[in-house]
This record gives sequence, C-alpha cells and structure tokens, in this order.
Amino acid sequence: MKKNFSHLNSAGEARMVNVGAKPVQRRRAVATGKLVCQPGTIRALKRNALPKGDVLTVAQIAGIQAAKRTSELVPLCHPLGLSCVEVTFKVRVTAIEIFCMAETSAQTGVEMEALTGVSVAALTLYDMCKAVDKTMRIENIRVTKKIKE
Amino acid sequence: MKKNFSHLNSAGEARMVNVGAKPVQRRRAVATGKLVCQPGTIRALKRNALPKGDVLTVAQIAGIQAAKRTSELVPLCHPLGLSCVEVTFKVRVTAIEIFCMAETSAQTGVEMEALTGVSVAALTLYDMCKAVDKTMRIENIRVTKKIKE
Amino acid sequence: MKKNFSHLNSAGEARMVNVGAKPVQRRRAVATGKLVCQPGTIRALKRNALPKGDVLTVAQIAGIQAAKRTSELVPLCHPLGLSCVEVTFKVRVTAIEIFCMAETSAQTGVEMEALTGVSVAALTLYDMCKAVDKTMRIENIRVTKKIKE
Amino acid sequence: MKKNFSHLNSAGEARMVNVGAKPVQRRRAVATGKLVCQPGTIRALKRNALPKGDVLTVAQIAGIQAAKRTSELVPLCHPLGLSCVEVTFKVRVTAIEIFCMAETSAQTGVEMEALTGVSVAALTLYDMCKAVDKTMRIENIRVTKKIKE
Amino acid sequence: MKKNFSHLNSAGEARMVNVGAKPVQRRRAVATGKLVCQPGTIRALKRNALPKGDVLTVAQIAGIQAAKRTSELVPLCHPLGLSCVEVTFKVRVTAIEIFCMAETSAQTGVEMEALTGVSVAALTLYDMCKAVDKTMRIENIRVTKKIKE
Amino acid sequence: MKKNFSHLNSAGEARMVNVGAKPVQRRRAVATGKLVCQPGTIRALKRNALPKGDVLTVAQIAGIQAAKRTSELVPLCHPLGLSCVEVTFKVRVTAIEIFCMAETSAQTGVEMEALTGVSVAALTLYDMCKAVDKTMRIENIRVTKKIKE
Repeated sequence: MKKNFSHLNSAGEARMVNVGAKPVQRRRAVATGKLVCQPGTIRALKRNALPKGDVLTVAQIAGIQAAKRTSELVPLCHPLGLSCVEVTFKVRVTAIEIFCMAETSAQTGVEMEALTGVSVAALTLYDMCKAVDKTMRIENIRVTKKIKE
Repeated sequence: MKKNFSHLNSAGEARMVNVGAKPVQRRRAVATGKLVCQPGTIRALKRNALPKGDVLTVAQIAGIQAAKRTSELVPLCHPLGLSCVEVTFKVRVTAIEIFCMAETSAQTGVEMEALTGVSVAALTLYDMCKAVDKTMRIENIRVTKKIKE
Repeated sequence: MKKNFSHLNSAGEARMVNVGAKPVQRRRAVATGKLVCQPGTIRALKRNALPKGDVLTVAQIAGIQAAKRTSELVPLCHPLGLSCVEVTFKVRVTAIEIFCMAETSAQTGVEMEALTGVSVAALTLYDMCKAVDKTMRIENIRVTKKIKE
Repeated sequence: MKKNFSHLNSAGEARMVNVGAKPVQRRRAVATGKLVCQPGTIRALKRNALPKGDVLTVAQIAGIQAAKRTSELVPLCHPLGLSCVEVTFKVRVTAIEIFCMAETSAQTGVEMEALTGVSVAALTLYDMCKAVDKTMRIENIRVTKKIKE
Repeated sequence: MKKNFSHLNSAGEARMVNVGAKPVQRRRAVATGKLVCQPGTIRALKRNALPKGDVLTVAQIAGIQAAKRTSELVPLCHPLGLSCVEVTFKVRVTAIEIFCMAETSAQTGVEMEALTGVSVAALTLYDMCKAVDKTMRIENIRVTKKIKE
Repeated sequence: MKKNFSHLNSAGEARMVNVGAKPVQRRRAVATGKLVCQPGTIRALKRNALPKGDVLTVAQIAGIQAAKRTSELVPLCHPLGLSCVEVTFKVRVTAIEIFCMAETSAQTGVEMEALTGVSVAALTLYDMCKAVDKTMRIENIRVTKKIKE
C-alpha cells in the first residue's frame, strides 16, 4: 500500500487535489451498477411500463442530470465541463443493470461523474418501483473503464 | 403482484404521485449501504485518516446535503422540508457501512431522502479513497426502516 | 387600473410579497404554451421519435424538475412544497402543445410554478428538435386555470 | 427533411450529443421574445415602476442567472463556461420585448442559453405584473442570431 | 457557559438538530452588515450608479435568492419555506450598510437565512465595485433581531 | 478615481463583463475573514469540539462547496472551472480566522470565489456556535492576494 490518499494532507486532513498543473486531456470513464428486484417486479415492469419506455427514460435523464452536477454533490470534486454523458440499461430477470459513460476534456478524470450518474439513475428506478417491491436494493456500483488520450 | 406502480398511469406513462389529499404526518426512514474496500485500504484509513476524522465527516456532510436536495435529483420526488437528517458510519474490516436517517412532517415519506443520503455519502468516501484502491464498489443500498406516526 | 403591483413598494422598488399572514390553502394552477414547428418536423418526430416516446418524456421530466425549482429561477417567488406537478402534451400538425398543472398546500399560489414547467418543457423540446428545424418558436405561454380551496 | 435529430439515436431514444471531437470556438447566440400585456399595464409600469427601474433589473438578473444554469434545466445540454450574458428590454405599447445574448468559447453553441435567459426574464416580468394584469402571455421566443468564429 | 453546542453530540461530532418535536411558529430574524469602501468609491457610485439604482437592486436580488437557498449553503441548516425575505441598504460616507429580514412559519428559526442574505448581498456589491476599489472589506455581519410568535 | 465600474455601462446599468477576448491564464486569489466570538465560546470549542475536529471540517467543506457555486450566488460572476479550492482556519483567543484560496485556468479572476468560500465557511461556523454565543459577528472579509501567471 504505497500510494497515498490524494485527498488527505500529511496531517490526515481532507483537501481538494490541486489539478492546476495537469494537462487538459480527453478523459472518459464508465461505471455500472444494478437495482436488484423480485422477478415479479421485472415482469410487471415489462408488461406495464417498459413498452411505453418511460421508466427507463426518466432514470436515464436523472442520471445524466446528476452526472453534470457531481461537483455539487461530492465535496472534493472539481467543477468541470462534460462533452458527453450516456446512461443505458439492461433489463435482466431479477435486476436492472445501469451503465453510465462520462467524457470530458479537462485536467482531471470523470469516474466520479460516471458513478454519480449510475447512483442517481438507480435511485430513480427505485423511486418508481418502490410501491410494488419492498425488497429492492442497489448493488455493485463500480468503475469498469477509465481512459485518457 | 396486486399493487400498482404509483408512478405510472394506466398508459404506462411516468407521473408524480399527487399527495395533496394525504395527511401531514411525522415520517421517518432509515437506509443503509456500504463501500467495500480492500483490507489494506481500511488499515491505511485507520492509520492516516480516521484519527483526524475528516474522511467520515466530509462524507457525512455530503450525505446530509444530498438528502436535502433529493427532489432535485430524483425527478418524481416531492420537494419537502426535513426536520432532521443523520448520517453515521461503522468501519468494518473490508467495508465502511453507512447509515442515513431522514425525518419530516409532510404528506409523503422520506425513504428516497435516506437512500440518497447513503448513496452520496458512499460516493464521497469512494472519491477520497480512489487514489489508493481501484477495486472499491458500493453495495447493498436499501431501506431498513420506514415509520409514520 | 386600481390594482397595485404587489411586488413594488410605494417607491417603485421591487420586493417579495409577505405571505406570512395568509392561510395555508390547497391551491392549483394550470398553464399552457406551445412549440411551433414546421409540419415536416412534426412528421419526422412522429415517424422517428414519438413511437419510442423519449422526446416527450424528456421534456415532461424537465418541466416537472423546473417547476419544483421555480423559486430559484424567479427571484421574488416563495420557496414552497408541491404536492403534485403534471406535464402533458398534445402533438398538433404544426405545433406541440404543452400543459402543466402544479398543486400545493401553501400560503401562496402556484401559477409561476405552472408557467415555469411549461417554459422549460418547451425549451427542452426546442433543444431536441433544433438540429432539424431552424424556424421554431415558443408561443402563447399563459395561465389557464387558478383555483384555491 | 434530410437532417437528423441529433438528440435521438437510430432507435429513437434520446441522448446527449457527444461534442468531444468538436473544436473549441468562440460562439455567440441571440434570442428574443416578449411579454404581451394590456396597454394599461404598460402605462402603470411606466408611471410607477420604470422610473425606479427595478422591474427590468430584476428580470435582467433572473435571465442572466438562468442562462448560466441552462444545463441544469435542459437535460441534454452540456455544462459549459460563459464569457458573457446580456439581457436587455424594449418597452412597447402592449408588450415588453426581451433580448438575450450569450457567448462562450466551447465545443458547442449557446442558443439554448440565450433562449433560457429570455424565458426566465419573461417569467420574472410576468411574476411582478401578475397582480395587475390577468391577461398576460409570453410570445414568440426564438433565436435571432447564431455565430461562430 | 452552561449552554451546549446544539450541533455537536456528546462525542463532539457535528449533527443536524432534530426539530421534529418543535411547534410550527411564525419566526422572524433580522441581520445586518456592511461593505466598507473608500469615500471616492461611494461618491462615484452616487454619481454613476445609484441614480439608475441597478447596483443596489442587483445586490438585493442576490441577497434574497441566497437567503432562499441557505440550507444548500450551510450544511446543518434545515430546508424550510420562507414567507418573506427583504434586503435593504443605507449608503453611508465610507460604507454601504445592508439589512436582511427573513420570515417563516416553521419549526426552526431563520437567523441563518437573514445572515446569508446579508453576506451574499455584500459579496455582490463587492463584485460590482471591485474594479474601482481594491481596499474594500465586508464588516460586522451579525443578527440584530430574532422573534417568534 | 479614473477607473471605471466594469459592471456598469455608460448609462449606469449593471452588466456582466465580456471576458471572451481575454487570454486563458492560471489565476489564483486568497481571501480571509474571521468569526469573532466570546473567549468562553472558543474555550468551549477547544474543549468539546476541536479535538474531534468536526466543526472546522464542516465549515471547510461548506466553504469549498460555496466557492464552486459562486456564479450561482453572485449574479454577474462568470461560471468557470476551478482547479483547486482550499479553506483553512486559525483558532485565536476571541476569533476563528478563515482563509480561502481559489485557483483556475480561465479568462477571469477568482477573488469572488475566494471571498465566497470565506463567507460561507464563516456562516457555517456561526450556525454551529449560535446556541452558545449570541454575540458573534463576522468581520473583516477581504482579498489578501491575487495572482495571474
């Protein structure tokens, strides 16, 4: 464990990392996670909600909007422009999988933006399904790709 | 599966539930979740960061702030006042467990506020530890209590 | 013209109206407006976008989200809770009509919330169609109903 | 109608356009619109409010502030810096005309920022005049100029 | 020093006070503060800016808007509705005095809202005068009145 | 007094300065200010709160978060990215001194960001101590350094 906590100074105090000397680079990150439901919830969604598509679109928009506001939510994140945010879904038998890609040309990476997009899309799905399923849980939110050019 | 999706009308379109006819009641919800890390990350946190306490306090504040802004993040949530938000942590061997309690006197419940507090506290912990641990994931975010008086 | 500008004091200076002495009442307002497009834009929307439904859902969510944040946008509006916001659409031959209903139990009315919901839904439709139609304009935004019980 | 909806993929699903490969250019857009009132409302404004100037200044500030937050309001807009926003007015016999210019050095244009500035300035004027005129409507919001260098 | 820090638990950890058991009461607070400038700055303001009035109106609107968003800025403040916010000014020989009154019917007081209104109005005045006066400072921000009925 | 109010046009009307023609430069500003308390308040803080550290960390996070949102609070400020924000404290006998450094690579300076960080950190300290000390005031907020490279 040689690496340091970049967000802590030598006294263990939290700080924002100074990225002012880093180059502006095109950076991309992908995160994923899932809302685990009962099979009946997925079947009901497929019957009533997914044909119209609204449930997934509402969650997609919520995820995109949240990714754009990551620096308001996560205190030590830098405010930065984003050239793209994508939120997509795969509906499984007992879960809805969520994927979020965020891209920027900036001095710092965007994995927090991708993770925030997944998290808020998951919360939004939870909100829309909570009346029919009291057992749902959000699982396995993590970064799956991080690239800079 | 008799219950209906309260956020979908009969055409499967998303909508905000009208809570205008519901009584104002004191309502409380508790949610939990965890950030799963490598044991070395927890040990390093305990050595460098937890004595000072900043890491957990930053995540606590982020969770409280996000819970207060739930209706900005989750599109079909109602804006409402909150009489209290609490965010607490338990540091385990390979995870940091997060707990969020939200309370209101309103016409609708606050489980989304509690879940949002947990989610953003988890994202904030992730952000502060991501330089030392590339394997972290956020797990098992769920509601554990929901009360109205 | 006997009525006074409630938002101006006797010196002509802007002010927020003090609603502290008004009763809490259930109040509802409906506003409408439309995005006027070329007929080809509407035909293309019907062919490519409306079957999936995303375009209208994205605008609906944007309108709901904006209505909830009216007091952040319109400086002399009061922050208040909303028990419901609905945004709906009628697709005409050369326009998309937008309707927004807002409801509260509060000391002041919600016509600004309804108008804000219509305005931002219209802007969002404009944004999604602007690549195919440079002639669009937003027309006739107005309040059509205002009720208190 | 050859042009495509840039915000829809081939399945008709909404998406944020990826502008990451576009050059950073200085871009400017101007939008306009108007609040149509009764002649008596304009006369009363001229007598009581316009000498002090507050009504127009409040609407100007609201428009500038909203233009800066366009990407929070319009879901598929990119967050970007703005080098200038200007909001100005012309008071006519039965209307207040509103103009908004937005400028950036970015990978994407700012017509949505200009339109948002006009829309929220119009809403703010509406709010301040609604106690004296129940017939007002917001009309003819459109882009009048779009330049890149 | 018998009184306790209401925002700290017995372990010295920060927390949001639970106001859920407190009665809803009409509460009002007034705060004040001043921007201290060079006499020449005030004279120039009086000659160029104050006749038009914009400088004070811009600061007034900024103060009102910030007071409404106090719970977003001050982490342990409760989100609450406001029935009125007033921001006024007195122009002195070497300072602009700022006054902010905030009023609510809620379970907790509004002195933080009044102080936030003063602070952001002062920052806004500073911003508009900073090109002509490098010596300005914001002084003596405090609560002058706190009432509940 | 030769210098002009950059935020006023020749008619004395407020405006946002157009920075579109200025070069992107690395810019840094430092501001300071203090919360003046009774000596007993500082002693109680040292005994109960400062060992745990939460009080200062909460204020630090609030200051950083506010600095990032300066353009939402101060109407004529430009939205811009920040490469770093630091908020630090010195606890004196009768005051807590606050320091905020903000840094950007942008077309305009960041003294307003630094001043906003100090102001909101001060408000947050005030909020946490207000139950034990009714005499506190915020004093001497000013810019102490402004650099561009």
